[in-house]
Amino acid sequence: MIKIVVAGFKGKMGATATQMVIDRDNFQLVGVLDPHSTESNLNQIGQYSQTDVPVFQTKEDLIESVQPDVWIDFTIPAVAFENTKFALKRKIAPVVGTTGFSEEEVKQLVGLSQQQQTGGLIAPNFAVGAVLMMEFAQKAAKYFPDVEILELHHDNKLDAPSGTAIKTAEMIAEVREPKVQGNPAEEELIPGARGADYQGMRIHSVRLPGLIAHQQVQFGSLGEGLTIRHDSYDRSSFMTGVALGCEKVVGLSQLVYGLEKLL
Amino acid sequence: MIKIVVAGFKGKMGATATQMVIDRDNFQLVGVLDPHSTESNLNQIGQYSQTDVPVFQTKEDLIESVQPDVWIDFTIPAVAFENTKFALKRKIAPVVGTTGFSEEEVKQLVGLSQQQQTGGLIAPNFAVGAVLMMEFAQKAAKYFPDVEILELHHDNKLDAPSGTAIKTAEMIAEVREPKVQGNPAEEELIPGARGADYQGMRIHSVRLPGLIAHQQVQFGSLGEGLTIRHDSYDRSSFMTGVALGCEKVVGLSQLVYGLEKLL
Amino acid sequence: MIKIVVAGFKGKMGATATQMVIDRDNFQLVGVLDPHSTESNLNQIGQYSQTDVPVFQTKEDLIESVQPDVWIDFTIPAVAFENTKFALKRKIAPVVGTTGFSEEEVKQLVGLSQQQQTGGLIAPNFAVGAVLMMEFAQKAAKYFPDVEILELHHDNKLDAPSGTAIKTAEMIAEVREPKVQGNPAEEELIPGARGADYQGMRIHSVRLPGLIAHQQVQFGSLGEGLTIRHDSYDRSSFMTGVALGCEKVVGLSQLVYGLEKLL
Amino acid sequence: MIKIVVAGFKGKMGATATQMVIDRDNFQLVGVLDPHSTESNLNQIGQYSQTDVPVFQTKEDLIESVQPDVWIDFTIPAVAFENTKFALKRKIAPVVGTTGFSEEEVKQLVGLSQQQQTGGLIAPNFAVGAVLMMEFAQKAAKYFPDVEILELHHDNKLDAPSGTAIKTAEMIAEVREPKVQGNPAEEELIPGARGADYQGMRIHSVRLPGLIAHQQVQFGSLGEGLTIRHDSYDRSSFMTGVALGCEKVVGLSQLVYGLEKLL
Repeated sequence: MIKIVVAGFKGKMGATATQMVIDRDNFQLVGVLDPHSTESNLNQIGQYSQTDVPVFQTKEDLIESVQPDVWIDFTIPAVAFENTKFALKRKIAPVVGTTGFSEEEVKQLVGLSQQQQTGGLIAPNFAVGAVLMMEFAQKAAKYFPDVEILELHHDNKLDAPSGTAIKTAEMIAEVREPKVQGNPAEEELIPGARGADYQGMRIHSVRLPGLIAHQQVQFGSLGEGLTIRHDSYDRSSFMTGVALGCEKVVGLSQLVYGLEKLL
Repeated sequence: MIKIVVAGFKGKMGATATQMVIDRDNFQLVGVLDPHSTESNLNQIGQYSQTDVPVFQTKEDLIESVQPDVWIDFTIPAVAFENTKFALKRKIAPVVGTTGFSEEEVKQLVGLSQQQQTGGLIAPNFAVGAVLMMEFAQKAAKYFPDVEILELHHDNKLDAPSGTAIKTAEMIAEVREPKVQGNPAEEELIPGARGADYQGMRIHSVRLPGLIAHQQVQFGSLGEGLTIRHDSYDRSSFMTGVALGCEKVVGLSQLVYGLEKLL
Repeated sequence: MIKIVVAGFKGKMGATATQMVIDRDNFQLVGVLDPHSTESNLNQIGQYSQTDVPVFQTKEDLIESVQPDVWIDFTIPAVAFENTKFALKRKIAPVVGTTGFSEEEVKQLVGLSQQQQTGGLIAPNFAVGAVLMMEFAQKAAKYFPDVEILELHHDNKLDAPSGTAIKTAEMIAEVREPKVQGNPAEEELIPGARGADYQGMRIHSVRLPGLIAHQQVQFGSLGEGLTIRHDSYDRSSFMTGVALGCEKVVGLSQLVYGLEKLL
Repeated sequence: MIKIVVAGFKGKMGATATQMVIDRDNFQLVGVLDPHSTESNLNQIGQYSQTDVPVFQTKEDLIESVQPDVWIDFTIPAVAFENTKFALKRKIAPVVGTTGFSEEEVKQLVGLSQQQQTGGLIAPNFAVGAVLMMEFAQKAAKYFPDVEILELHHDNKLDAPSGTAIKTAEMIAEVREPKVQGNPAEEELIPGARGADYQGMRIHSVRLPGLIAHQQVQFGSLGEGLTIRHDSYDRSSFMTGVALGCEKVVGLSQLVYGLEKLL
């Protein structure tokens, strides 16, 4: 049974993480933290009325009362940095979901974790499926240099291609020689038909109402095709990765960056 | 039992049609025609060794010997035009697969067919699945104005988007008000990511080795999506439509243009 | 501008419909009804704080104050039946989403609507995409008798195949001769591999966490395939159909059953 | 430039391999072997009229004239076993596509290769994409225990599920605890709807005309899905793997079994 606290439990991600810890049999929620909370126990909040767990407003109060193994942190970057140091110094393994740390800050936290011989995880993306998709795509590209990426999102999205699509293309580019794809004499009858060109790979961004976040990496070769697709339906998709992180960090002796390090 | 002749039986499409007529229980192959043939009977050709059917080099010879109900024509446009007139004048219903007729020529043939009270079909595309896909896409667009077209072909293809994709977009445009899709403030981080713009609809052309000819019309709306996809694996896909044409033309009293008229 | 009331506005579907009417430019919400409501105006409820619309506890109170064109009803069957009669008698066109009416009740309501020369709609399924999928599948089956249905749902679902899959198979069966599919000598190495058998059509039910409600009708023929897929992501998917119903019923002179009648 | 001979060049797979060796820039075809051949040079055969390469009827004749680096073998099992020994004894690396060897025979050939310090490959399946699909599926199953397999084939196929589907399920079972999937109280309204049960994983076999050989491994988890799909369109799909084998075996010092060993 892994003892866990959740910092930032009143935010969307924090609340989802809190529920996940409550739901899992091998996890025990021993406290939650949020400076904006006014309750002293989770059972004072409607959705958690069956859950008797103390609520804290400061990390100092929390640490006086409970002894967690893992510190899940879904606060804002500035707070998360202080929280992570605070946890590591007490040999509590942090599992942190923020994209806002500088390289320097990450390096400092890794150093501290090594001194403390304490595991931890900082991950900009906790969706296990998305991380596996990128890893598989990179491996497949070694054998199938012809590849196109289709990413499909709701039509409120501002940027095209998506960050995940560009990250995937970068990872593929690490193992694939730049290569012009398609017929060398091909012609676009309407500009843009062949999509975005990233070192010869083509990326296509579909935007439609109803869609959420989907990506398909499609490889083609003589007489065959290989397709790897990830569908993300909602925020809860991150929780498989957060849970995995909690299980793994207690066995590590230093903090790692990126969920792929644990897969 | 419908009696059928195939003109142009030595070409790729003609040979496929010949085999189809032989294979179907409700069709009887009564003759084949090709000016380049040197045989007098199909059974002199390896693949047809079990099929006793006369081979003709001229349409005049053919008509002296056999009385077909239907004239399948997969010759070149110039020849096909003369053949079609020749058939109609003898009240034989033509089923013609050529994209090369002018509007004037089609009009002339339709007129002749009306005089002769004889059915017939000229179709630029005999793939029933592709014709249904376009028809369904047009109907769906009445209710779902947000639509993107993905077409996927082998990487030797020269033009993007494909002719079928442009035809589909045109058919959708007949029932859909022009409408800018996606976020009005969306930004292409790499040019072309959002594909070709046809009256606000986006068209994406994927080209990969291994692929054959595929198209997906994808609609999105509040909380739902509707997708219509056609996969064409080889030339035989046209034969469902040719067979349907043969069955239908014998019941018509004039020539029609486009397989969709018979669906 | 169509004037609309929503009965059952406190339920999940009713609340979604209420929001839809507020959001659409061509609709005007003139009142909402729910016996369990305690407010007198929608603006007393958090999510509708900007919306000044009267709340009623009884239909009699409602009709004294407002004159709607359309009556959206998402109450329970017993109430819905009375409400629909009440509306028709006042020449208000009902749009009713309940699956609980008997054939006799529907017949009675249609009769009343004819007397009153008033339009209306009762629909067990308001997802336009699902209705189109079934209609397209039925049409395609005329030309492609080989068809399999894949339906994919979250893993809490109790019944397999889904109601929509069975409805689709029934609709296809209306136009397709029963036909054994697959190799006549095919053998299941593990029982159930070939799925459920409905007059020779095979239906496959996938159940996985993360999925919502998806169905794919897949046709195959010589050298080609045609696939029609519907994805339902959440309850809001019904609102395209409810809105369409509201727009159409004001032009009808009797009540119809089934959204497909309006497509 | 790798010097290659093809044994069994008159068979379907052998002919496809011969053409592949001719087409690749880094390969040089130095001879072909078939006891049933009557030609002395490939250029006497229509499709190879531009290729000046000697044809041999016996392996002894071949080895007197040419010094290959790699011996591609697409003969029958009995011949292939002798050929492979023959090649290894002359330090020629064999690339053998047969499923007919016994475990004992494979062991004997591996032993011989070690003595000779010569690389080699025996592979029952040369489709790189299929091998990657299975490998990725196995890895994903570590994180996503809920998985269903859909395999789709032409409707002449006799067995269901396919051999590849069963192999995939076995590989997944190596890393996944048996687990009943779906709702524990789920009910099949038509038997077979939930597919074949392999340790709780469900396998669904679709059979339709037009299809070739396709497989989709679909994982689901809280709020997300991961899908890995392989499409095989024709025999040429094996050639990517044969080519890869030829490139790799020259750098090995013993024979390996299974293409996955080289990925």
